[in-house]
Amino acid sequence: MILTVKTRVKTEFVDITSEVNRLLASTGSVVDGLCFLYVPHTTAAVTINESADPSVRKDILKVLNDIVPWEAGYRHLEGNSPAHIKSTLVGASEWIAVENNRLVLGTWQGLFFCEFDGPRNRKVHVRVVPG
Amino acid sequence: MILTVKTRVKTEFVDITSEVNRLLASTGSVVDGLCFLYVPHTTAAVTINESADPSVRKDILKVLNDIVPWEAGYRHLEGNSPAHIKSTLVGASEWIAVENNRLVLGTWQGLFFCEFDGPRNRKVHVRVVPG
Amino acid sequence: MILTVKTRVKTEFVDITSEVNRLLASTGSVVDGLCFLYVPHTTAAVTINESADPSVRKDILKVLNDIVPWEAGYRHLEGNSPAHIKSTLVGASEWIAVENNRLVLGTWQGLFFCEFDGPRNRKVHVRVVPG
Repeated sequence: MILTVKTRVKTEFVDITSEVNRLLASTGSVVDGLCFLYVPHTTAAVTINESADPSVRKDILKVLNDIVPWEAGYRHLEGNSPAHIKSTLVGASEWIAVENNRLVLGTWQGLFFCEFDGPRNRKVHVRVVPG
Repeated sequence: MILTVKTRVKTEFVDITSEVNRLLASTGSVVDGLCFLYVPHTTAAVTINESADPSVRKDILKVLNDIVPWEAGYRHLEGNSPAHIKSTLVGASEWIAVENNRLVLGTWQGLFFCEFDGPRNRKVHVRVVPG
Repeated sequence: MILTVKTRVKTEFVDITSEVNRLLASTGSVVDGLCFLYVPHTTAAVTINESADPSVRKDILKVLNDIVPWEAGYRHLEGNSPAHIKSTLVGASEWIAVENNRLVLGTWQGLFFCEFDGPRNRKVHVRVVPG
């Protein structure tokens, strides 16, 4: 299954928890298992963090943007090396348990698509493995 | 299966290798597979690193605490944004092969629960997928 | 299955995409599934990022080497604490879908072994889970 994500600015965290749950509900067949979420892009990532207070994702993004300098004599001429670096720091995939076609997240957890070189039309590959 | 971890200070790495092996041994049934470890918290993480010399985990934690500033005009008013950021940098899950009900780790590898906002009572979800 | 990687310098990213595809092709039996790649070392890692322009991996490595100081009063006396820290930041494993015995990567994605304390002879464990 593929989820599409439309990002609006250069860097942002988009909460995709509801969309993934909707996708899992639409399959109807899996009850228990593990959900694999994979970003096929090299300037984006996925992460799990607090969804209750939107300030948290802004603080995370701010520090990521502070840690990785926008200018540093980069060799890659496209100008988006900072996005590639953040992608490797955060990671291209996540795994989350699924029960009754819903993600089993902790109380405060949500699932976020991390855009580091937007705005763009992005994809997240979603698979469920039984077990 | 769920492992409980009691942390004692603000930030620390707790070696949980033996506890996970004990949990795997208690099931009795699985011989080969892959073990999924998942932290349902947003201010903690799991990582794999050297267990032989306890200095290594202290050095890792020290640099993580240096990289992510304790004060940076954070918007999140709970005061634990640095913990949320470290959680995303290190990650909420790990996968390790299992043979004969024991984790298949490299010679120097151990499994660590990473507390970034302790002390607290924490959980690690443990599942084994055949294959 | 085990892939061997010979690294040549202190820190480098080695593109192992072709070697993993060759390994998957040599099994002959799996058609669809998920590939688990695991580094049994504590001073190395694996990541997915752009393979088209070799400058990208150099930029990523440069910033990782900038973020984690070479000297910081480390307690671990072996002198390779920076490598252990980078290993935890990037991570010991990756998962990638497999179809027809080939990794399903995004257009620009490649798979990289990350050496942080070379030169050494290294290993990557490779498993495929059906599903």
